[in-house]
Amino acid sequence: MTTILPHFASAGHAADKNCKVALLGFGTVGRSVARLLYARSNEHPLELTHVCNREVARKKVDWISPQVMWTEDIDELLASDADVVVELLGGLQPAHDWVRRALQSRKSVVTANKQLMAHYGSELLELAQAEQQFLGFGACVAGGVPVLSGLHDGLAGDRLIQVRGILNGTCNFILTMIEQAGSPFAEALAEAQEAGLAEADPTEDIDGLDAGAKLAILARVGLHIELRPQQVVCHSVRNVTAVDFEYAHELGCTIRQISTAKLVHGRIYAFVGPAIVPRDSPLAGISGSQNLVVSTGEFGGDTVFSGHGAGGNPTAVAVVSDLLQAVQHRLNGIQRSHRPAACSCEVTADFELQQYARFVVRDRPGILAALAGVFSRHHINVDAVLQRPGYMKSKLPFVITLEPCTESRLQAALAEIGGFDFLVETPLRMPILK
Amino acid sequence: MTTILPHFASAGHAADKNCKVALLGFGTVGRSVARLLYARSNEHPLELTHVCNREVARKKVDWISPQVMWTEDIDELLASDADVVVELLGGLQPAHDWVRRALQSRKSVVTANKQLMAHYGSELLELAQAEQQFLGFGACVAGGVPVLSGLHDGLAGDRLIQVRGILNGTCNFILTMIEQAGSPFAEALAEAQEAGLAEADPTEDIDGLDAGAKLAILARVGLHIELRPQQVVCHSVRNVTAVDFEYAHELGCTIRQISTAKLVHGRIYAFVGPAIVPRDSPLAGISGSQNLVVSTGEFGGDTVFSGHGAGGNPTAVAVVSDLLQAVQHRLNGIQRSHRPAACSCEVTADFELQQYARFVVRDRPGILAALAGVFSRHHINVDAVLQRPGYMKSKLPFVITLEPCTESRLQAALAEIGGFDFLVETPLRMPILK
Repeated sequence: MTTILPHFASAGHAADKNCKVALLGFGTVGRSVARLLYARSNEHPLELTHVCNREVARKKVDWISPQVMWTEDIDELLASDADVVVELLGGLQPAHDWVRRALQSRKSVVTANKQLMAHYGSELLELAQAEQQFLGFGACVAGGVPVLSGLHDGLAGDRLIQVRGILNGTCNFILTMIEQAGSPFAEALAEAQEAGLAEADPTEDIDGLDAGAKLAILARVGLHIELRPQQVVCHSVRNVTAVDFEYAHELGCTIRQISTAKLVHGRIYAFVGPAIVPRDSPLAGISGSQNLVVSTGEFGGDTVFSGHGAGGNPTAVAVVSDLLQAVQHRLNGIQRSHRPAACSCEVTADFELQQYARFVVRDRPGILAALAGVFSRHHINVDAVLQRPGYMKSKLPFVITLEPCTESRLQAALAEIGGFDFLVETPLRMPILK
Repeated sequence: MTTILPHFASAGHAADKNCKVALLGFGTVGRSVARLLYARSNEHPLELTHVCNREVARKKVDWISPQVMWTEDIDELLASDADVVVELLGGLQPAHDWVRRALQSRKSVVTANKQLMAHYGSELLELAQAEQQFLGFGACVAGGVPVLSGLHDGLAGDRLIQVRGILNGTCNFILTMIEQAGSPFAEALAEAQEAGLAEADPTEDIDGLDAGAKLAILARVGLHIELRPQQVVCHSVRNVTAVDFEYAHELGCTIRQISTAKLVHGRIYAFVGPAIVPRDSPLAGISGSQNLVVSTGEFGGDTVFSGHGAGGNPTAVAVVSDLLQAVQHRLNGIQRSHRPAACSCEVTADFELQQYARFVVRDRPGILAALAGVFSRHHINVDAVLQRPGYMKSKLPFVITLEPCTESRLQAALAEIGGFDFLVETPLRMPILK
């Protein structure tokens, strides 16, 4: 019948702050991390001691302890007695240099920088191990959803063969808008920008580069494969229209931006882009800025992780969870790598999937025969033809679904089809993930 | 372009098996653990060295290495050079004694025994820490779903205030049968027994004791609260009928056996039983023997974990994941507790929830007035009355939904209602979890 004692109280940390934390970057996530550290200050041994940002005078806030040292000078931070640097700069440079230098200064690092970890993860993990420092990056994928620790520790006993997920909240929001309100893509994007869910330049999100970086990190942690972000095949969601949702619904499905990395016969394929997913799949149930990852193991089958993929607080939870791991690392002096090394593996872009192809044509006799002829010559079997009534003959959208075929065959067929003069738009193709 | 190197190969373990594993119990899960260890033998440093079971002669299988020592004698096992004992006996005794003795013999322990960890978890974790041994129990809750490591490590940065889930596959299967086929409870149970999904004596599953033990473990790991399994309020799913699903559907909901532990103003309440959940909630999407846990954090909001909650292989994945943690523990000589201590907290059974109450009556004028009068005298507001057409007047089922009210008021009102002679059955009440 005593009161609730906090998480770390039993270890006697409340009075004895023994891990000094420096924030490198004080934007939305940085402020949330600081607030979370203060809100739980009697429950953990973490003490915020430094904040490094440009224009400190403008950034300073009065709720931060006066003992905290503010600086604009990375050298001052690296020379300080901080134990852990939390890198929240984003982008490759100067983040890459500064994280290297922090590790070389015998500081542990916690980062939320997905591009940094996707491009330089292996190098930085090796450096961290050489310097006997902890490098945490749980916040890089799916914000507050503890998927990286789940794959790395909780499912270590399995042999994972696939990771798949909804990793970009901006795309998910835009596609939900198109589905629910029938908005054209440009309008849905503008709404996402107004709601603060898309950048002024949304390319990274909608063309798949953001999700691709996260997928590369998931592949390293879950599949133990070194996948370069450039090796991920990315298709944009720009060309998805309300008509595609109508046809997807007819198939008992919906459309989501899906990221998949899959091991098949010792090779890996990885792609990001809009895809047709069954409406009763957990992928279809994810709305707004939520994220979801499904891992598939040879022994344990499918495991699903989902939750808030973005936002200051969820990301701060991931950062502070990593900071607590860094504390354990320091207390126990763990010298072995806590993350197994990822290995290289042949990456193929020629994977075989069922496909959805949507055409918009000036209607006239013979179109279906022409298209079917091309697919047949490329040894692709047509599964079904869907044509809903009520569209204009001059701009008629219809769909052909294809039985599983390789990417190379599909591309060859679509290249040939591109020459037909009845096309009003470039065909949109999406894999059907059943 | 090299081949895929396995998980642990970089640490050079393939040739150097340095962790000897003893299986205590060789039933379904034990055999799956052994198979998984052999299937991935070149990827980890774990070596199966001992199997302890009754009637060894009958249990022996030829696919186990001849080097493995089989014994029926626990003393022989405890005196052996095994590094980790995997306890798969189930039940409180002799498991409790033997796990204590294993830890005292300076062996780490991995267990899938939820009753053991629910009743004696704190004591055993303390003993493990005193003996500087690892005690892993990830397989106790939700089989292969890595929810305990997710709550403990991945969400360590958050302050969790609720854990809720579907933790018993038997109940979930039975309720799904009633929903989909309109089967009476006894028939659905018989089908579950035939399918091997329910025991001959199904009490533990359907009356909530199994889920209650798992909930106590979740509360310790996620909420850091010491909750005794006896403190969990359990309601049976025995009285749920097809009619209840009809009414639940009318509310846009369905019925699942739900386990919830929630912190409110420094007190905790914990209950297991059938509950009304919205059809678009992740809880409603779980079918068959799948498990799902949703944690709610003050900072990160809701996080969902789901997957295969039972079966040999998923449970074996959880066991082997814990074995790999035990290896890390041994390599790094971690001496500090890897799990923060749980603390006691006032447990209340008097929680406040919206409620569904289904009555079956011999119809006559004045029934509704009588019931409404009782609720009103107990200061409980009626939210809605649902009465579907087409039932017999002599055995008329209808539903009253109630605005949030405390358990004590509800029980007092139902006790008074119990005296009415128009009741044909004891009313069924379930919380509405929106």
